[in-house]
Amino acid sequence: MQIAKTHRVAGGELAYTSHRSASTGTEMRLSVFTPPGTGPFPYLIWLSGLTCTEDNFTTKAGAYAAAAQHGVAIVAPDTSPRGEGVADDPAYDLGQGAGFYVDATQAPWAPHFKMESYFTRDLIVAVEAAFPLAPRRSIFGHSMGGHGALTLAMRHPQLFKSVSAFSPISSPTRCPWGEKALGAYLGSDRDAWRAHDAALLIEAGKAAAFDDILIDQGTGDQFLSEQLKPELLEEAARKAGQKLRVRRQDGYDHSYFFIASFVSEHVAFHAARLA
Amino acid sequence: MQIAKTHRVAGGELAYTSHRSASTGTEMRLSVFTPPGTGPFPYLIWLSGLTCTEDNFTTKAGAYAAAAQHGVAIVAPDTSPRGEGVADDPAYDLGQGAGFYVDATQAPWAPHFKMESYFTRDLIVAVEAAFPLAPRRSIFGHSMGGHGALTLAMRHPQLFKSVSAFSPISSPTRCPWGEKALGAYLGSDRDAWRAHDAALLIEAGKAAAFDDILIDQGTGDQFLSEQLKPELLEEAARKAGQKLRVRRQDGYDHSYFFIASFVSEHVAFHAARLA
Repeated sequence: MQIAKTHRVAGGELAYTSHRSASTGTEMRLSVFTPPGTGPFPYLIWLSGLTCTEDNFTTKAGAYAAAAQHGVAIVAPDTSPRGEGVADDPAYDLGQGAGFYVDATQAPWAPHFKMESYFTRDLIVAVEAAFPLAPRRSIFGHSMGGHGALTLAMRHPQLFKSVSAFSPISSPTRCPWGEKALGAYLGSDRDAWRAHDAALLIEAGKAAAFDDILIDQGTGDQFLSEQLKPELLEEAARKAGQKLRVRRQDGYDHSYFFIASFVSEHVAFHAARLA
Repeated sequence: MQIAKTHRVAGGELAYTSHRSASTGTEMRLSVFTPPGTGPFPYLIWLSGLTCTEDNFTTKAGAYAAAAQHGVAIVAPDTSPRGEGVADDPAYDLGQGAGFYVDATQAPWAPHFKMESYFTRDLIVAVEAAFPLAPRRSIFGHSMGGHGALTLAMRHPQLFKSVSAFSPISSPTRCPWGEKALGAYLGSDRDAWRAHDAALLIEAGKAAAFDDILIDQGTGDQFLSEQLKPELLEEAARKAGQKLRVRRQDGYDHSYFFIASFVSEHVAFHAARLA
């Protein structure tokens, strides 16, 4: 881990750092907040949305006062591999900044876009070695990162104590963002996409390890009906007997102002399950 | 007031807006947060530091939960005139983004850089007409904006109920940033600078209208000893019998992570004096 800079915030310490990932074959950037004290601390991994880097949550979410209060750390990584030789696309919703938290199997993405392996292997090992973190983790995220949090939690339930999301892409097999990205990264066979669809995973009982799942969704979100579709999560949870709450927050949009308004409640939700 | 966009945040409403200023002769941008309810609300004006726009505080300070809790609005304007025909300088500490909250008398700045008149006349009139704001205001800011908050409060004590600052430029007549900017905007006669020096104004008794002044300063701030010099405020307050607290916050730097860590205490400080 190369620490680029540190800031004191909310009585704790924030580090901007990077490390070499074997999965992506690139240098991956992230921020790590540790609360006051010596640890080891349980921690949350935050997965950001389309176009984001490690900086969006870190500077805009205002989550660290709540994290300090609850004694949890927060790890906020970048959303894709980047750098020389890494494939990209001019669209905002594919390629760099849009990794979708899957391991790509298709050209030109397959060599570096291994984001599921990155998160579930390299990232966890690296941060737990370099920072005073306990091997007790939860995961949450926003939009594409909400999809990532839900699917990674259900695909690797042994790794995470709890999961929550803001405005997640609920069913990428049934929305334009998801269809485009999964088609590019996993190929045209839609059967391969199903294992990365949060609603379908819930319906298949894959969330059974989690006593509750918390979703916040703004009713003023411009992407709500075409891309996000939280009703598909509710329907799947009903079918599977899975406890899952979608809180529809009146008038909130898709921005970090929405996240900042409710992030302390998500931190508390996870802290209770990491205790 | 032209409203460009709005966001719901912390139960209130955030508007990015702009208006024509007679003082600067330009379109001036700002954000306005109003808490839940119908108002009229007392409000805080935030003055940002070098290189900032209306966006830095708005997205990074995390102040709106506290503002909502206390029922105060927050107005966060840009730090200088901008646009076609407005003078600028390639340095980060002069010209656009570095208005220093004075009315320039010197070429090429004098035509548009009338930031004291802008704040104390145009801005107040415009926001109180367009938003549900009561004519009860306080003022606070950071770095160059801490200088601005202190000096505008002392030069116009009838306009503001209270004043506080983060990491202010305490005495611009005695630091490189201040000497450069005041020299450029007000000319080489240093006597003209004295009326815009917070420490000298306090020493002259100009803060007497304020029962207390709250200053937060990080001890890890890279600009502390050369540019900021809060000890000059303390010395001036001692001489004048002015109540003023400089809280030295261990290890905090000059960034918005510092502001985010203590802004809710500043909001509470002002709310108590606006009640």
